[in-house]
Amino acid sequence: MVKKLHTTGTDKVVVILSGGMDSTLSAYKMVEMGFDVISLHFSYGQKTESREFQAFSDISDSIPVSNRYHFELPFFSEIGVGTSSLIDRNMVVEEGGVSETEIPSSYVPFRNGIMLSIATAIAEKEGAIGIAIGVVEEDSSGYPDCREDFISTFEKSINLGTKEGNLKIFRPLVNLKKEEIVKEAISLAVPLNLTWSCYQREDKACGVCDSCRLRLKGFKIAGVEDKIPYLRK
Amino acid sequence: MVKKLHTTGTDKVVVILSGGMDSTLSAYKMVEMGFDVISLHFSYGQKTESREFQAFSDISDSIPVSNRYHFELPFFSEIGVGTSSLIDRNMVVEEGGVSETEIPSSYVPFRNGIMLSIATAIAEKEGAIGIAIGVVEEDSSGYPDCREDFISTFEKSINLGTKEGNLKIFRPLVNLKKEEIVKEAISLAVPLNLTWSCYQREDKACGVCDSCRLRLKGFKIAGVEDKIPYLRK
Repeated sequence: MVKKLHTTGTDKVVVILSGGMDSTLSAYKMVEMGFDVISLHFSYGQKTESREFQAFSDISDSIPVSNRYHFELPFFSEIGVGTSSLIDRNMVVEEGGVSETEIPSSYVPFRNGIMLSIATAIAEKEGAIGIAIGVVEEDSSGYPDCREDFISTFEKSINLGTKEGNLKIFRPLVNLKKEEIVKEAISLAVPLNLTWSCYQREDKACGVCDSCRLRLKGFKIAGVEDKIPYLRK
Repeated sequence: MVKKLHTTGTDKVVVILSGGMDSTLSAYKMVEMGFDVISLHFSYGQKTESREFQAFSDISDSIPVSNRYHFELPFFSEIGVGTSSLIDRNMVVEEGGVSETEIPSSYVPFRNGIMLSIATAIAEKEGAIGIAIGVVEEDSSGYPDCREDFISTFEKSINLGTKEGNLKIFRPLVNLKKEEIVKEAISLAVPLNLTWSCYQREDKACGVCDSCRLRLKGFKIAGVEDKIPYLRK
């Protein structure tokens, strides 16, 4: 079990927690490593904002978080219009499968950079030693801000631009495949039924957006049943 | 005159414009270089929020901007409590003079990192070739996120984390002294009377906060009169 591995009074880590499978596993891994977790969630006008916040709350309740932040980023509505199908209600989320070469329309301009920057400010305020983010490079939608190169260079920059200059960005999933994420989550008793990955629905997961497809592929290869409700799969 | 140097239809640059002397000069320098300027202002709960927005509006009116953004960042109120005298109404802005060694209480955790990240997203949306920021390294309050090293590494990171990966961060003032900023501003006919630098007052500049002190020192050494109203100087 994860909970018993947690030690209070130890170093703090700010965990960016969307409530999806990947960020949830990264939170559990930080708990397993003995860190005090501060969970951080963003509402940025994404189509599944309410459902994601529910997942964030449920998962934060399931681990011993020492503090939690929920920030509204209303400016993303303006940035997302015409640029991202995750935000713009007039743009359709792709359902045809993950492209090998194209960055999909769900890409939100520099979302991880913005979220990591805000997490950095919280880490400074809280005296945390680092930040955790559930980015996955290979087996993913191909977003540029999920690459290891980006994260490692960003880590250098935040250490040049902050007071203490000694922050670590944990990205424990960056080189994992989706089935490895499912398997690791199960080995850490992560409540995957509480997580939400779908880009476009809040009642039942659509099963066909990139995020659902990647999730379902991971469960299938891992030979595990995904117990969240699906419209089709 | 600046206006006649502007060419429409050329490359766009997103200019982070607080409405202070430094960011205003950086905006005018971008116009001088022939770029289409998109001005960007943030309200983040700073004590002089209204006066800064007025300055931003006046300055954006004084140059041919092709678009302007004004984003509210309400989360900074939460980050700033207990960390920054620029935001926390219970913390006193220092009036004793700029320290050579200490980072002053006005420092806002990773503010420039957050602002540059958001500017990056706008640059992606707008198809801009870069971002401009009026950071000053030497003759300043000693904020870590105003250093050249920080900006250059951050520039690398945004180019690894965005679609096109070809953005430039212009920081034309980074190595200037305050008197050089005053002189350059005058040579470019920058309306310095429209700018606002004071950290704590909106009617008359206090004259004694770090920002007022640095500004007044610059005008004095440059041998120029600062025409904005001061409580004392």
